Amino acid sequence: MRWCRFQTQDKIRHGIIDESGEISAVSGTPLESYTVTGETYQRSTVELLVPVIPRTFYAAGINYLKHITYSALRRGEEPALPKKADVGYRAINALIADGQPIMIPADASEQVQYEGELVVVIGRLCRNVPEEEALDYVFGYTIGNDVSERTWQKTDRTLWRAKNTDTFKPMGPWIVTDLDPESLHVKITLSGRVVGEYDVKDAIFGVAHYISEMSRYLTLMPGDVLWMGTDGETENMKDGDVVEVEISGIGTLKNPVVREK
Amino acid sequence: MRWCRFQTQDKIRHGIIDESGEISAVSGTPLESYTVTGETYQRSTVELLVPVIPRTFYAAGINYLKHITYSALRRGEEPALPKKADVGYRAINALIADGQPIMIPADASEQVQYEGELVVVIGRLCRNVPEEEALDYVFGYTIGNDVSERTWQKTDRTLWRAKNTDTFKPMGPWIVTDLDPESLHVKITLSGRVVGEYDVKDAIFGVAHYISEMSRYLTLMPGDVLWMGTDGETENMKDGDVVEVEISGIGTLKNPVVREK
Repeated sequence: MRWCRFQTQDKIRHGIIDESGEISAVSGTPLESYTVTGETYQRSTVELLVPVIPRTFYAAGINYLKHITYSALRRGEEPALPKKADVGYRAINALIADGQPIMIPADASEQVQYEGELVVVIGRLCRNVPEEEALDYVFGYTIGNDVSERTWQKTDRTLWRAKNTDTFKPMGPWIVTDLDPESLHVKITLSGRVVGEYDVKDAIFGVAHYISEMSRYLTLMPGDVLWMGTDGETENMKDGDVVEVEISGIGTLKNPVVREK
Repeated sequence: MRWCRFQTQDKIRHGIIDESGEISAVSGTPLESYTVTGETYQRSTVELLVPVIPRTFYAAGINYLKHITYSALRRGEEPALPKKADVGYRAINALIADGQPIMIPADASEQVQYEGELVVVIGRLCRNVPEEEALDYVFGYTIGNDVSERTWQKTDRTLWRAKNTDTFKPMGPWIVTDLDPESLHVKITLSGRVVGEYDVKDAIFGVAHYISEMSRYLTLMPGDVLWMGTDGETENMKDGDVVEVEISGIGTLKNPVVREK
């Protein structure tokens, strides 16, 4: 099923969206309980929202070999692979939906870059789960763009501005259930040019491993999200660009880029 | 006013709590809109909850000179003062209320330590506010204990386990409005022995400065919290200890410590 969250007049609704863009609205939410109302909407007539507002926003960060190697060389450092699945955080303020503009602050450098990646949405309360059962706790998968300002990433003590400036976390357009994350392929396009492609399964630590390791210390809750990291090199995005992250079986997250004056 | 959040039967309520412990319940929430219902409860008959579940959970981290110096020497490093107000994050899963036990995982080291600190609760949407207006956006203040496992803090790539293991973020017991943060004094007690004391105003970067700097890039939202960091040395907490963080004008956050077998 493909679940979306959308705005009608002054109300936020959840719904099941089909291939043609028809949304079947529900009352309630898919993460708690819901009833199909019988009301339908066309995607073109409503505003799709970020498909879930997480309670906690986790991000794997460095989790793919080619991206780690490339990033280290760019900084003039030796590549250092993570020894274990230490998770990081991102922030709610930065989330925007499919179609909304990524706003680059006027004082940011030219080095504002995309990172297209898989997003895991937790479906059930989860503590101390073994790796072989971990995927049972996943509600579904969506797409994220972990937009990063590289000079701030180097100079700030934390990643707060570099990764969490308002609009730096596009997520959507919807959540797809019943997928095998290991089978997914990611393709990133910048203003029509393919700039990156990789297989989710090439991650150093996979979805099930991350969930299991995190759950040894943390209670994961329905609606928490885990962004899985990106692979490969990344390029600067400039005013007027359009960045698309496509994941097989899910869809395409597409956002225009605007630099503030 | 002193605002608390509490559980009655199967309902979560907000209320105004007076010095005697009488709670005047409201419908709605103080951060949106509320009406005093006329119902009252005694603190002893209800369970106080974490006073607010933040949308984003910010933490200043290193923000006091004596604590930075002490922490650096313990690691065998030169103390390095932060040059600007880079903010960090903590996680919702770790929050517990006044009175609830801090659970130390069986595989944690002996070096699980308290950090008593002021917590700022944002009251109004806040973007690009000058420092001199920043405190107008604060709803009130509460107390936090930034419990930290020091060996994980050194060995993990991020602070996820070290700072955000379940129960590692006691916060409460309530939120007090109309305080001057610069006038507050913090006292930390471990099983009846005073182990630390400092003035909030000795922070390297104060509340107004942090809010103003963060708001240049981030939209702060009602209910977001900002933990201001701690000063001085910290000690290990062991099974059976009780840790109290008292802040003048707010109250005392008190939690027992239990080590899991």
